[in-house]
Amino acid sequence: MRDSVVYLVGAGPGDPDLISVKGLKLISVADAIVYDRLVDKKLLDLSRSECQLVYVGKSPGGSIEQKQINKILVDLAKVHRITVRLKGGDPYIFGRGGEEVLALKENNIKVEVIPGISSATSGPLLSGIPLTHRSVSAAFTVVTGSTSETEALNYKALAELNSTIVVLMGVANRKTISDELIKYGRMENTPVAVIRWASYEKQELMKLTLKDLGDSNITPPAVIVIGDVAGLNLTDN
Amino acid sequence: MRDSVVYLVGAGPGDPDLISVKGLKLISVADAIVYDRLVDKKLLDLSRSECQLVYVGKSPGGSIEQKQINKILVDLAKVHRITVRLKGGDPYIFGRGGEEVLALKENNIKVEVIPGISSATSGPLLSGIPLTHRSVSAAFTVVTGSTSETEALNYKALAELNSTIVVLMGVANRKTISDELIKYGRMENTPVAVIRWASYEKQELMKLTLKDLGDSNITPPAVIVIGDVAGLNLTDN
Repeated sequence: MRDSVVYLVGAGPGDPDLISVKGLKLISVADAIVYDRLVDKKLLDLSRSECQLVYVGKSPGGSIEQKQINKILVDLAKVHRITVRLKGGDPYIFGRGGEEVLALKENNIKVEVIPGISSATSGPLLSGIPLTHRSVSAAFTVVTGSTSETEALNYKALAELNSTIVVLMGVANRKTISDELIKYGRMENTPVAVIRWASYEKQELMKLTLKDLGDSNITPPAVIVIGDVAGLNLTDN
Repeated sequence: MRDSVVYLVGAGPGDPDLISVKGLKLISVADAIVYDRLVDKKLLDLSRSECQLVYVGKSPGGSIEQKQINKILVDLAKVHRITVRLKGGDPYIFGRGGEEVLALKENNIKVEVIPGISSATSGPLLSGIPLTHRSVSAAFTVVTGSTSETEALNYKALAELNSTIVVLMGVANRKTISDELIKYGRMENTPVAVIRWASYEKQELMKLTLKDLGDSNITPPAVIVIGDVAGLNLTDN
């Protein structure tokens, strides 16, 4: 086995300036970069001209399986010294980074994970919404709205916990989320903010109520923030 | 009013390479930088030689009041074009960034907030612990352990919610946290990980159980992770 390393790098929410300095350095020295749909192409422009670029973008319901991505990473590590697996947001926040790490370790390949700025926290921030704010919110919960995981979610506890709720990949299940939280006691008029394309130029902010979330007309990618902080608007950027 | 801007910049968990590219650029052009105790001095070395450096480090129970910091920022914005308020982690995750933004806006000073990598997510990651992991954890809740906020925390809902729990500033209240979560149904042997000095060279990882957390011998700064993912150890870094 050659002394190769695979770096799982959190690319941040989208804006190429929101990757970490370390992540950017790794991109600039990589022999191969494996990237997703939500990674800005400007980041790839910063790689070496010899760098092999491999697209494994999963759109919702897309076709590339996680197992296949794992195999691509293992195969690349066998021929390259530095492989960067560039993942939108943070590798360990619903990024399935853990599965990629385990697959690489099973094949005795060295892995290092570099954290990134998640859209769960930066999407709200860039829309002027603080996830915590003195005397408004002292806790926040990040959940995924994707069906398989949602089934296990304890909506009663989530509704009763006095925390800001951030939902990633929740567009398809917004009706269930809205109905369940109201059923278990969250007020119908709880402020909700929907941030689409966080940190991109086309970033959009929609403000509504928990009741209206269910029938709202939104499409991915979107971060949904539920709670009193969603009614705040600290900055205009 | 001069055309000055105050940038609230998330410095990340500590390692100077984990600040965002945008944050680093702002440091390099700043006329003044206002910084905290948990900000690595190496970041300040990257500022211009003329840059005015202002320390407002709050140690736990420290003496500089938030109001005083707000006033310092307003005063600096009156004499400088670019003031950077460098905050450990992310400005809107228990950073009291919202209060600083409001104080500046009240004084008609332009503010922009730049997200950072929080120790809440990167501390666990850098210790090999994924906050979410397929079939182990599909949600995580970030809370503060600081007394005033903790009193409002609904421990029953927090215990019943099937999510990973991340506690920032929780060392002083670890006994209460442990007792309350167990009282409301979390198992005594729930895995707990304590990460001290996340991302610094002196980073430390301690693994214990929820029952033992209460009487454990730990000192700040520490991130406490409670839940099955704390028993994982995906990478060794």
